[in-house]
Amino acid sequence: MALAQRLERLGTETAFAVSAAAAAWGAHGHTIYPFHLGDIDLPTPGNIVEAMNAAIADGKTGYCPGAGIPQLREALADDIGGRRGMTIAPSQIVVQPGGKPVIGKWIQTIMNPGDEVLYPNPGYPIYESQIEYHGGVATSYRYIPTDSGFAIDLDQVRSLITPRTRAIIYNNLQNPISAESTPEEMAAIAELAQQHDLQVLADEAYFEMRYSGTSSSIASIDGMAERTTILYTFSKKFAMTGWRLGCAAAPQEIADVLSKLNTNDESCTTHFVQWAGVAGLHDDSGAAPIREELQRRRDAAHEALNAIAGFSVAKPNATFYLFPDVTDAMARKGYSDLPTFARAALEATGVSFCTRLHFGRPQPGEDRFYARFAYSGISAPAIRDGLGKLKTWIEA
Amino acid sequence: MALAQRLERLGTETAFAVSAAAAAWGAHGHTIYPFHLGDIDLPTPGNIVEAMNAAIADGKTGYCPGAGIPQLREALADDIGGRRGMTIAPSQIVVQPGGKPVIGKWIQTIMNPGDEVLYPNPGYPIYESQIEYHGGVATSYRYIPTDSGFAIDLDQVRSLITPRTRAIIYNNLQNPISAESTPEEMAAIAELAQQHDLQVLADEAYFEMRYSGTSSSIASIDGMAERTTILYTFSKKFAMTGWRLGCAAAPQEIADVLSKLNTNDESCTTHFVQWAGVAGLHDDSGAAPIREELQRRRDAAHEALNAIAGFSVAKPNATFYLFPDVTDAMARKGYSDLPTFARAALEATGVSFCTRLHFGRPQPGEDRFYARFAYSGISAPAIRDGLGKLKTWIEA
Repeated sequence: MALAQRLERLGTETAFAVSAAAAAWGAHGHTIYPFHLGDIDLPTPGNIVEAMNAAIADGKTGYCPGAGIPQLREALADDIGGRRGMTIAPSQIVVQPGGKPVIGKWIQTIMNPGDEVLYPNPGYPIYESQIEYHGGVATSYRYIPTDSGFAIDLDQVRSLITPRTRAIIYNNLQNPISAESTPEEMAAIAELAQQHDLQVLADEAYFEMRYSGTSSSIASIDGMAERTTILYTFSKKFAMTGWRLGCAAAPQEIADVLSKLNTNDESCTTHFVQWAGVAGLHDDSGAAPIREELQRRRDAAHEALNAIAGFSVAKPNATFYLFPDVTDAMARKGYSDLPTFARAALEATGVSFCTRLHFGRPQPGEDRFYARFAYSGISAPAIRDGLGKLKTWIEA
Repeated sequence: MALAQRLERLGTETAFAVSAAAAAWGAHGHTIYPFHLGDIDLPTPGNIVEAMNAAIADGKTGYCPGAGIPQLREALADDIGGRRGMTIAPSQIVVQPGGKPVIGKWIQTIMNPGDEVLYPNPGYPIYESQIEYHGGVATSYRYIPTDSGFAIDLDQVRSLITPRTRAIIYNNLQNPISAESTPEEMAAIAELAQQHDLQVLADEAYFEMRYSGTSSSIASIDGMAERTTILYTFSKKFAMTGWRLGCAAAPQEIADVLSKLNTNDESCTTHFVQWAGVAGLHDDSGAAPIREELQRRRDAAHEALNAIAGFSVAKPNATFYLFPDVTDAMARKGYSDLPTFARAALEATGVSFCTRLHFGRPQPGEDRFYARFAYSGISAPAIRDGLGKLKTWIEA
């Protein structure tokens, strides 16, 4: 069967293959320590579930507006704007079934075929997939290791901008590397966007998933609100990954298109789930215990990973990922490629993790190996247990 | 701001504007009789809501596979296949947030830019929108009034097929006109599809929303399963429009692409909503009272519409739409265009309805006027009350 040619340009998330491999290994009776998926094994706060059921009892089971129910758009405008020191109108909020749908819909809205779009690599693989799928030129920018984590290679970003560059995807508090911009770095990205008239997708999925310090948004920098679309999700803060609830907060002209795309694509986001979201924003006290538990896990994972000979990782303030340099450990064990190392670690210890290769094609000149450990789906004792086994294996 | 050029080809559903007009009129204190939207004002069966809550309590709030949870794919394969006399493998089922997402994803999968795709007009407006949005040539086919409803103009369909024709969208039990194919008509469409190697989207949203007779699927005709993608939805049968749950049942190669598109677009459909769907399929006893109530409404609406001088409509066995010819009534009242007539009817009586113009551009030679009355969101007494007022106004 001859399928459409555009499908040759469609990428995917290969991290799901790691889940499958771990599940298959576990099915043989092995204990699995799941560090591969950025999912959360904690319950959603009770007030959110209760609000959903109240909405169902109140008949909120029919269609609702494609851009979202007015009550949720208002609550999101207040919440997203308030936390960023910005004024956002409810009309700029377009509710989505998760944060992810914002990526493809935004690309469809601002990019013509042949346009170049800058995106982070390592980074969330759907950026590259959607840019290329819709006919754009995916131009990746890299990060440089620092004492406290990673910094965007701003010189490289500058060198990559051409007259065809249309937009940049900026994922501060980054998946998979947990990079956080300094104020100077964020200002530099904003300056480049204004100099070169770039649209910006600010993927702020982890804006409130932080353990110390304060998040800020590139959208709040002077001159940026009118060119920045914020990706917001309920998934992390409220442990709602499987609920599929998020939104775009976008310049009005873009928001209007996103709403029209919703009408074409899925009509609306699940009606009563939107009412659950309203309740979460009005009373977000259930988010603190989730964040506190994740902080305990971060501390456990950070300590246990750095205790492994040949592993090195900074302690990020946000996200639920650690991205250790594992080059020396691999050399110690005699591995020269990440997939073989990860597979051997799974079979020897049950510890399952993604590698740098699940987050984009390696950049020219990359000579260090990295792995991504997500600690959102595994308890602190299991973190210590699993990473202890990994240490024993690597140091044997 | 220069947005992407592809957006010039993006259509929408204009029926939502009728909702807005009705709501605005109602806000002035007028009683509204809502016949404009194919939504259902009946509660979802209790066992489905209970299963959803049990799933949440069981921790089904995280991500799940992009193609759907295995339990739902199995239940859907059994149910869809069983009702159509076909064998469908669970791997051919790709769960979606509603039936609608199947339309755009299927078009992306099988159509290249410049390919021609046949679609019904009047018909669901998203067909045309998505064909054109993705660069195809939307080629509409028409229906001919018969004593019992409408028949596809097969001669026209034959005349429209060219070497560039790639696919046909076939919506038996049709929205908005409630057309139902005879076995001969369905066989003729199937024969054309095989002769010209066309892919088929069988939009079967109303397959189980019928009051007499038995539905059959074009996919069950010899040689058709391998070229037919079935659009299935929970929305109608279970009064779950706002839950957003549906699927494609597709040839394996197409199903694999739809699954990859899911991973790109929304990760997965709401996890616990899928468990609710499993419960509905395993015990669908809650569907009968919904169908019985809709049958009472159909009978009330059919009788009341035909009692209006200058209205004429057949009694369809399925869907929840009536599509009367209102030409003579409009002439009687002195109206020569549908929007003015519908607006006047709203302001005089509170009766709100869509017209033929919400379901595609009129075909050359169309000389009769039609309106669409959806009876799924209004009780039988309100149907009689509202249409009684409409009769009084028209006959005054």
